[in-house]
Amino acid sequence: MRETWVVGAASSRYGKMPDTGRETATRVALEALDRAGIDPKAVGHTFVANAFGFTERQAHIGPLINSALGIPDVPSLTVESACSSSSAALHEAFVHVAGGFLDVALVIGFEKLSQIDTLEATSDFALAADYPYETLNGATFPGLYATIASAHQKRYGTTSAELGAVAIKNHANAARNPHAQFQKEISLEKYLASPIIASPLRLYDCCPFSDGAAALVVAAKDALPSPSTEPLVIRASVRSGSLGDVHDRADLTSLPATKTAAAAAFRASGLTAAGIDFLEVHDCFTIAELIALEDLGFFPAGSAGRATVEGLTARDGKLPVNPSGGLKAKGHPVGATGAGQIVEVFEQFNGLAGTRQVPKAETALTHNVGATGSSCSVHIFSRR
Amino acid sequence: MRETWVVGAASSRYGKMPDTGRETATRVALEALDRAGIDPKAVGHTFVANAFGFTERQAHIGPLINSALGIPDVPSLTVESACSSSSAALHEAFVHVAGGFLDVALVIGFEKLSQIDTLEATSDFALAADYPYETLNGATFPGLYATIASAHQKRYGTTSAELGAVAIKNHANAARNPHAQFQKEISLEKYLASPIIASPLRLYDCCPFSDGAAALVVAAKDALPSPSTEPLVIRASVRSGSLGDVHDRADLTSLPATKTAAAAAFRASGLTAAGIDFLEVHDCFTIAELIALEDLGFFPAGSAGRATVEGLTARDGKLPVNPSGGLKAKGHPVGATGAGQIVEVFEQFNGLAGTRQVPKAETALTHNVGATGSSCSVHIFSRR
Repeated sequence: MRETWVVGAASSRYGKMPDTGRETATRVALEALDRAGIDPKAVGHTFVANAFGFTERQAHIGPLINSALGIPDVPSLTVESACSSSSAALHEAFVHVAGGFLDVALVIGFEKLSQIDTLEATSDFALAADYPYETLNGATFPGLYATIASAHQKRYGTTSAELGAVAIKNHANAARNPHAQFQKEISLEKYLASPIIASPLRLYDCCPFSDGAAALVVAAKDALPSPSTEPLVIRASVRSGSLGDVHDRADLTSLPATKTAAAAAFRASGLTAAGIDFLEVHDCFTIAELIALEDLGFFPAGSAGRATVEGLTARDGKLPVNPSGGLKAKGHPVGATGAGQIVEVFEQFNGLAGTRQVPKAETALTHNVGATGSSCSVHIFSRR
Repeated sequence: MRETWVVGAASSRYGKMPDTGRETATRVALEALDRAGIDPKAVGHTFVANAFGFTERQAHIGPLINSALGIPDVPSLTVESACSSSSAALHEAFVHVAGGFLDVALVIGFEKLSQIDTLEATSDFALAADYPYETLNGATFPGLYATIASAHQKRYGTTSAELGAVAIKNHANAARNPHAQFQKEISLEKYLASPIIASPLRLYDCCPFSDGAAALVVAAKDALPSPSTEPLVIRASVRSGSLGDVHDRADLTSLPATKTAAAAAFRASGLTAAGIDFLEVHDCFTIAELIALEDLGFFPAGSAGRATVEGLTARDGKLPVNPSGGLKAKGHPVGATGAGQIVEVFEQFNGLAGTRQVPKAETALTHNVGATGSSCSVHIFSRR
């Protein structure tokens, strides 16, 4: 297996984009290649993540992007794994490159949803739940994660202030991130005054709908021994699954797929939790960040809320979590989200994170969840 | 790179299915595993192709199928490459297995469209074209392929009777295939009496909308040295691309992606066209079969029509093409189509093809196109 790197990465600002998804995706892909100093013609395959292209009446988008990039002969594949689509795309790129099938691959994730209203978006997002068993019975994602939050509160006494601390921290980070949708801080008062969306989750517990695009250039070390950037060595690229439906699971206070993927990723990387400098985790709702930190093994079950309140996961804390602002405040353009987490790692490794630079950025873990955890991707990166 | 095999394969009957896509996909996956004599728990990854799941209000289908198969912890990826989605899924499975990342992978392709009307289906299929440049201007796939057919007629004098000969042959084959949607023969008179859909293409030049599912079990030779079936050795698994829009191409009488993929596949396989016993090619419209045979190098440009009239591509001809009945008459359940072509190869290799058994089945080539050829997959198989 060849050592495989992320040698370039770029992101649009998340939020509402006037351009089509294709236009933004193409522009960001060119930026990632430019950062890597790699000509598009060196790319052997593109892997595109775009979960809700049907809202733009556009499927089979890869060949159109490749045509725009000037590489029409190159094969492209669209991959979908709900909100973990572009981390899954990176996994495919990793397997192709590490396995010796390609030297350079391009991962492009994007979503363009602002042309539909939020009611339709909520319904479309719920396509990633189980339609006959969950969605048809009224359970969209805010409700499903609220059920999980309720179970976590019941077992561990997790408080509103602890959930709020996640939102406050991530907004504080996003305020320093030019890619972020919400570049503003919020207070506990503002959090507590926000309306209930699905009890116990308030408006500020929920990530927004976002447009956005992110791209990653993946290359084999032996094909590009002297990259122009500080590359991210892919120490582990792992995907996992778990029972599709929340109601089928024995325990609602953890996501089994996160535990499975984390165990395999730490094993593959040769690192332990103590060796990770910072994290980007999947905080589609504040409760998801707490459960992720517990399932990944960084905090004992039921204790991540207190750790957050105490500032341990702040940008300048012992273990910075979501220095980008996370899905919560940076935004959640579904197909772009997983790749966007890795753009943050790239910018942190390369000293491009400006005022949100974390104290130490030599190793990082990214965690990206599909739906309520029926899919999960964990990647571990180090400097070379 | 490890030698990699298709050790099991199964298909539903194509046509109109009463069950959900998920139910049919799960049943067919179990049949493929059963044919291979492999327990679902041996599967390390599932790759699912389902191009139009949004019409069932269901995305992120893989974890739900895995849950139904009793393997919820196994990762799943949905891949989309328009009408070449499940051959693209096989390519991913091949890369994972041949690269040593997995021992056994399961490829599942399915589509369930009969719940929507044909007008909506035509519009949804057109998502795979270029929305702002083609679809918005009225060019859906019958029109785009009619443009290609017109150009082929103009350059080579291709006749209606030659196009009709493709339809007549494929219906004759489908009449012997229990998986086929149209198990009936047609005559030249019936073909010529059928209405024009988009000149020069008639009703019987066009494949139907179909529900259906197909599944393939992929395993490394060294992980399963004594399979219970006659395995398909994957001698080549190649994907390619070309300019997304028909109007951008210098020549409309061939699909560049087919030529690119075929050249690479023959090179990888060590075989030549003369060494291939039979083919399954992408005949979404009759003209597409003729162009495929020319682009793949089996007949000189402009001569495949005459060869078809002369019976060279008949089931008992010199080079049987689409013994299954092809997309034209077996049917075209988009996400299942590419895998379904390989089910035919499996049944031919294993003597399971009944009265449509071809005279010699030791090597085969499958050719699967996305949209108007902006994506293409070519696979070459041999007996071990």
